[in-house]
This record gives sequence, C-alpha cells and structure tokens, in this order.
Amino acid sequence: MRKQSTIKLFFQEAQQAGRFASLVVVSLLLAVPGVLAQADPLPSWNDGPAKQAIVAFVQTTTDTSHPDYVPPEARIATFDQDGTTWVEYPVYTQARYCFDRVATLAQEKPELKDIKPFKTVLSGDKAAIAGLPMADLEKIIGATMTGMTVEALTGQVQQWLETARDTRWKRSYAELVYQPMLEVMQYLRANGYKTYFVTGGSQDFVRAFAQSVYAIPPEQVVGTMGATTFGYDAAGRPKLTEEPRLLLDDNGPGKPEGIHLMIGRRPVAAFGNSVGDREMLEYTQAGSGARLMMLVHHDDAGREYAYGPASKVGTFTDALMAQAKQQNWVVISMKNDWKRIFPWEQ
Amino acid sequence: MRKQSTIKLFFQEAQQAGRFASLVVVSLLLAVPGVLAQADPLPSWNDGPAKQAIVAFVQTTTDTSHPDYVPPEARIATFDQDGTTWVEYPVYTQARYCFDRVATLAQEKPELKDIKPFKTVLSGDKAAIAGLPMADLEKIIGATMTGMTVEALTGQVQQWLETARDTRWKRSYAELVYQPMLEVMQYLRANGYKTYFVTGGSQDFVRAFAQSVYAIPPEQVVGTMGATTFGYDAAGRPKLTEEPRLLLDDNGPGKPEGIHLMIGRRPVAAFGNSVGDREMLEYTQAGSGARLMMLVHHDDAGREYAYGPASKVGTFTDALMAQAKQQNWVVISMKNDWKRIFPWEQ
Repeated sequence: MRKQSTIKLFFQEAQQAGRFASLVVVSLLLAVPGVLAQADPLPSWNDGPAKQAIVAFVQTTTDTSHPDYVPPEARIATFDQDGTTWVEYPVYTQARYCFDRVATLAQEKPELKDIKPFKTVLSGDKAAIAGLPMADLEKIIGATMTGMTVEALTGQVQQWLETARDTRWKRSYAELVYQPMLEVMQYLRANGYKTYFVTGGSQDFVRAFAQSVYAIPPEQVVGTMGATTFGYDAAGRPKLTEEPRLLLDDNGPGKPEGIHLMIGRRPVAAFGNSVGDREMLEYTQAGSGARLMMLVHHDDAGREYAYGPASKVGTFTDALMAQAKQQNWVVISMKNDWKRIFPWEQ
Repeated sequence: MRKQSTIKLFFQEAQQAGRFASLVVVSLLLAVPGVLAQADPLPSWNDGPAKQAIVAFVQTTTDTSHPDYVPPEARIATFDQDGTTWVEYPVYTQARYCFDRVATLAQEKPELKDIKPFKTVLSGDKAAIAGLPMADLEKIIGATMTGMTVEALTGQVQQWLETARDTRWKRSYAELVYQPMLEVMQYLRANGYKTYFVTGGSQDFVRAFAQSVYAIPPEQVVGTMGATTFGYDAAGRPKLTEEPRLLLDDNGPGKPEGIHLMIGRRPVAAFGNSVGDREMLEYTQAGSGARLMMLVHHDDAGREYAYGPASKVGTFTDALMAQAKQQNWVVISMKNDWKRIFPWEQ
C-alpha cells in the first residue's frame, strides 16, 4: 500500500507539469540581497519569524546554561530534499532522471521503443504516461535504477547531473538548490548539528550528489531504501548489485521509521514542505525540550513556484497548514522570508 | 533462507553450550600486564604481527605523505560484536536475553508455561530447545523483542544488562568485553576513524548498550534490522513499535549489504571472528589502498575459550583459516597476542 502510494505520487507529480506550468508567472523581479553584517549566519533570510525561530533555536540548544541545552551527540537535524532544499516542480528531479534514462537505454536497445511502458515514456504523451499502472511504473524504476552495481548507479547519476538542464532556468539541477536552506544547514553544522537528508527519493540516488551539492555525506542520507545483493563479478571480485526490492518507503510514516533505522535517535529539528513530512515533524516535536519544526511554503510564483494552499496544487495541503498553525510549526514563506532563492542570484 | 539460517545459527550456537563446556579447561594463569611506555596505544597487546599490523595500518593511512593516506571522511572501521569484542560462548548474549525474557514474561503470564515453545524454553531441556523448529524460534524472538515501543525495548535490555550475570565469571555481560579490542577502537577513533558495529545481533538490542559499553553511538550500529511501525498512543502521541518483520539479515553477505545501506561507504578496516564475517572482510579488502582485515581466533581455553580450528567447534572454520592465510588477513591469537582479556584483569 505504502509502496504504491509513494511510487504513484512520484510519477503523478511529475506529470502535473503540464497543468502546473500554466499557473506559473515568471517574474524577473528578483530580490536584491541587502547589506548585511558579516556575522549574520543567514544572510539570504529576511528578518522575520522564520529567521528568528532558527536563530533562537540554535542559541537556546547550544547554551550550556539553558534548560533546553542539547548535548552535541543529540544535535540531529533532518531535512526533506525535494521542495525543501531544491526545486521539485514541475517534475521531481529523480523522475526526470528515470525518464531521461529510459531514452538513454533506448539508444542502446532500440527494441525498447516498441515495448510498453518504455514506448509510452518515449512517446512524451503526458496523459498516457500519467495513466500508466503501478506495475509499469515499477518496471521503469527497475529498468533505470536496478541491476547494476552500486558504483555504476552512482556514476550514471553523477554523469547525468553534469549534463542535464532544467527547462525553465536552463541550469543544472545541482544549481536549483535553495541558498537560504544551504545557509541553515551550514549554520546548524557550525553549531555542532549533524544534518541528515530524510527524503522520499531513492537513497542511493541522493547519495550520488549529496556530498558535492549539500556537504551531506552518504551515511547521513536516509531515503527510500532498495535492497542490494552481495556477489562476485566474473573475476571473483566482491560486488553489490542494486535490486528491485523495496526495504523501506521513506515517505510519510516511513520517515520516522527510516530515521529510527538509520540514526536511532529522535531529531531535535526537522524541515519539510509537504504531507510526506508530517509524521517526521510530529515525531520530532514529540521529544522533550526545545524543538524546531519548519515547513517551506512555495508561495512565490515569480521567483520559483506557488503551490499548496496558495494554488490548491501540490502536497502542502490545507490540512497540513492547519496542523502547522495548531502545533506551532514554523511556515517559511519563500516570498517573504527569502531574500534570494538560488546561490547564483547575486 | 538467509533469515532462517541466522536465526537457526543464533539459537543452535546457544545450545552448543552443553557440549562445549566440557571442552573448557579453566585456568587461573592470567597474564600479568607488563610495564609499558605511556605512549603505547595498545598496552594490552603483546608485540607481534597482529599489533604491528594495526599500528602500521593506522600510521600509513593517517600519514598525508603516504600514497595510502586515507582522508578522514573515509576512515571507516567495522567490528563484528559477538566473539570479536565480547564473549559469545557458551551462549550468545542476545539468546540469553531472549531466554531470560521468556521467564520474565511467564511471571506476568503464567499461562505461557503451558504453551509451546515457551514451555520448552522454560523447561531448560537443552536437547528439546535445540530441536525447536524455525517457526518456534521466530515466536520466541517475536514474543521477547517485538510489540513494544523502541524506547520500551531499550529500557528492558538495559535493565536486564544491569542485573544479569554470566555463569562462569559471575559478572555483567557488559564486563565481558575484550580490553585489547576496546583499545583498538579507541586507537582508531583517536586517529580520526569512525568505529561501527556490524553485527548479526538485532540492531536495537545492540544499540541499547553500544554507547555505554563501547562508546559507539546508535547511528554507528549496523545490525540485523527489524521493521518498526509509526503510530500514535492512546493520548495521540507519536510512537514507533518494534515489529516481527525482518528488513535485513546482517550476517554473511548481509554484512556488506548492511554496510552499504547504513553507511554507503566501503570500510578500510574490518574485524570479525567467524564465517559470518567473511563477506565483510572480502568487501573491505576489495577497495584500493591500505586495508586491514583481522579475525579474532579463540585459542585460549584457559583465559577465555578455545574453539574454531583449535577444537572443530564454532564458526571459525578450517576453510576460513585457509582463506585468511591466502588473502593475508591477520589472525589474532587470543592466547599469544593479548596480554589480558578483560578490563577488570589488572
């Protein structure tokens, strides 16, 4: 059930691109970063409740004289990735990878052009792709992300990321990261926090670039986990092969489950942007002492996108917004809280 | 298949106690630690090929001018636990926990005394226990280690460890750790290595004491992984419940698979003592540059136990010894390489 829901969501959101693009009004009115004191750890944030919450949390939890002091080993901060630390719209980057990979595979094996569901993907017919049944979506992930060694998958993802460009900004996906969130990660790390990804994306997919793009090492990437199988290559050398077998669906309730499996500690800070992050924030908040729960709200159609409560599109539902208000989770307004969105906007 | 093999092995070895005890000759001729230079990082080790291999490996991999220098982030050392860092004979500590826990549960629920397989465990009839079918062994693990919250399991294990005593030394199991291996762990950590457990034991069982006994934090414990399920208690508070569903059998080929899942990096040093560690050592060795693969050989019937090639009992097989010699893995002789075995032997 949960497996199906995530995979379906993954591809369905990718397919919302068409409908969604019509909602987007591109604006060139980029915010101009103001002059800031050198000591400001969050220079891309406007002063406001979101920035104040982050700074207060860090100061409180690292102050040995404060009752809510958190010892260094317990300083765990978890971040969703898609939509929280980089652009997820109109298509999840990993879905883009899978679709592009089908095209690459079709060059090597032209017969794929006549075999469903690859034929459908290669057709570019969005309605047909959106209508693919679950079994076909699993075939696409199986064909593009399993069967090779873990090193081969990493290499394929890294190579793709070097050349692929998004359609709106014509930039590498690695450049579509949110500068304010990079600053939060760095600020937390400078204060003794370990920053983890807790993502619905495939764990080995995100590991392929988490270090170079976000300074997050592979052991701090918690994602949707597929099995690997140990074996030997023709020369008798040990190898690990990616398998099409799900171990843990790291989405929704799977996020606290994945956190426990991989970290074994409850986070004290958690950042997300959708209903898939709800249980992670609840689990974080249920601990004692100071806690920081934040949700990125995409309400900036000009500089990025507006979805969720602002547009009734996407996975930041009205119910999630209501829960955030009720439980004192901090909602980050991209439009109001962020001076700039991307690192290359200077 | 693999699930069955580990569970079966786990209990079978526990049942070898009777046969094995007859092989043991207890000696009071404890080695007397010699006078050592303060700078010696491994004071409980006799000078010899094993100690020399450890020191040379650490010096080589931390020397920036050496071609085999290993950058700090890649300094990953993995340790098996049972039989490698603490006593595993005559009964695995976790098996002892499960059997004791059945007795505790029977006090709360006397009807268990009449229900198989609990009736069999409570009878103390070793032959009958050894003959329990797989389904019954799974019932014992299910009854003793699942169904409670993760915090409750941790508390039960910690409470048990405070009171339980082994039959030979009449000490806490936490005291039956190998002082020379504690020194290796500390020496590696002092040189920038992250020390991980990679154990066939249940991950949450080992996490309950890994920090206090070995200074290994929960996020560095890779073990046999059971699922948890996120939910809410009667008051609506989030909780994680231990489930009787296996995610990864961290034994044999499962060790490199578990290492990849949890760490995402190949170790540069690995320590084990049985055929269950073979693939972990192979995987470690298959990387480039300096590598350290070590196997603890229990050949000291006087101070601890003798099994494996020395006695034809246990899981350090002749084939493993032959492979160790062929692939230049370092075999640690407890008898010859260790000045003392336990921390309390002064």
